[in-house]
Amino acid sequence: MLRTLAQSFPNENFLYLGDTARLPYGTKSSHTIRQYVDQNIQFLTRRKVKAIVVACNSASSVLDRPHPSPIPIYDVIGPGSRTAYEASKNLRIGVIATRATVSQGAYVRAIEQLDPQAKVFQQACPLLVPLVEEGWIEDPLTRLIVYRYLNPMIHQSVDTLVLGCTHYPLLRSAIAKVMGPDVSLIDSGQAIAQELKSDMEIGKVSPRETGGGKIMILNTESDTHIRFTAESILAPLRIHSFTHVDIQSQSHLPTED
Amino acid sequence: MLRTLAQSFPNENFLYLGDTARLPYGTKSSHTIRQYVDQNIQFLTRRKVKAIVVACNSASSVLDRPHPSPIPIYDVIGPGSRTAYEASKNLRIGVIATRATVSQGAYVRAIEQLDPQAKVFQQACPLLVPLVEEGWIEDPLTRLIVYRYLNPMIHQSVDTLVLGCTHYPLLRSAIAKVMGPDVSLIDSGQAIAQELKSDMEIGKVSPRETGGGKIMILNTESDTHIRFTAESILAPLRIHSFTHVDIQSQSHLPTED
Repeated sequence: MLRTLAQSFPNENFLYLGDTARLPYGTKSSHTIRQYVDQNIQFLTRRKVKAIVVACNSASSVLDRPHPSPIPIYDVIGPGSRTAYEASKNLRIGVIATRATVSQGAYVRAIEQLDPQAKVFQQACPLLVPLVEEGWIEDPLTRLIVYRYLNPMIHQSVDTLVLGCTHYPLLRSAIAKVMGPDVSLIDSGQAIAQELKSDMEIGKVSPRETGGGKIMILNTESDTHIRFTAESILAPLRIHSFTHVDIQSQSHLPTED
Repeated sequence: MLRTLAQSFPNENFLYLGDTARLPYGTKSSHTIRQYVDQNIQFLTRRKVKAIVVACNSASSVLDRPHPSPIPIYDVIGPGSRTAYEASKNLRIGVIATRATVSQGAYVRAIEQLDPQAKVFQQACPLLVPLVEEGWIEDPLTRLIVYRYLNPMIHQSVDTLVLGCTHYPLLRSAIAKVMGPDVSLIDSGQAIAQELKSDMEIGKVSPRETGGGKIMILNTESDTHIRFTAESILAPLRIHSFTHVDIQSQSHLPTED
């Protein structure tokens, strides 16, 4: 997501906040996720950013819409739903996601709002995130687990499947094998860059014309291996700075100037 | 663990703090886990408990020993290591645990301190907790994953295996099938009740003779389904109260009287 955005907007500076100390969000209650997301948005707003992208489906699924924030907040649900709706021919759309995203039903609401005739089928896949984190990407065990989760979707004849968690595109090949070549797989992250671009064109977010291009990573975990992971994911893009922040104890600080 | 302790000490009151809003600990860095454990110990100390049991291996693995707390702190590493050492005949002991516990190496140090001749083999099993939480307990996929993790232990001819995470005893049957009947499986939680009992006999912790018997659950998640889960795990024991607490915003409150 950050990679896509940084490549789409090379003159912008990016402040990336990874709340790794409280991950995963996808197994937590909506009350807890909302509390964390509110703290994160407050934290970034104090850093004077001009727009915030909530690049996590579980976090996006609990956001108030419209959000009361003074700056534009982008989330993955809207763009992902529109892209899926445009891709579907039979209006039977599957959504795979964390337990939190599925229980909020945000994709179902968003797609049915676009077209009340659309049928949306959801499936929570709690093991896929730990499988990706274990690195078992091209693995027969992973394919068996993906098959078990996706089998009901095949029986529902969906022609479009939303990969409703930022980890899932890494399993795209296993998912495509199970679903077959006729099902469109939607990476909701990719749709955000498009939406942000349109908003810059109409002036809702003012673009930066020159300079910039810095990626600054703020991370709530202090572990150094996260830096190496971030560097390898973002390469060849360079990380300008990498800082450990403690959101919990900074939630009551005044605005930074 | 709480069930074992409550049944072993029917006259004691138990205040159980479940930090579910920040779970899992096992995937986080030692810095972050230590910060959470310190907040939890402070929180319980303010509630005037007479002893604290750290019933999580990942949390236990980062504890300072001896701990500077004014009240006795029990953790699972010591009792689990002693029980494993007593059970082993060939002094080849396996430990399966979360990534955090393995990277701390607390079991290795504790067992080698008991006997420098002992050989300890560790294996991180990050998928086992999500498999238990998904409810895939008696499941061919779970057996395949357990087999992949445990295969190196079999080749090391361990005769004793520490189940170094509170979730793992739920997979005891799958683990026993893979390891075979000659390998002793050690549930480190069961060893704590024995240690606490000895300390009460020598007066290190003063026992309550009558009354008591209340189980009060404090939980950092507000989700109501956690209450049902707790009730079904503890049955037939009754939960006296169930309260949602916010440790993050309470860490600077004064002592409660």
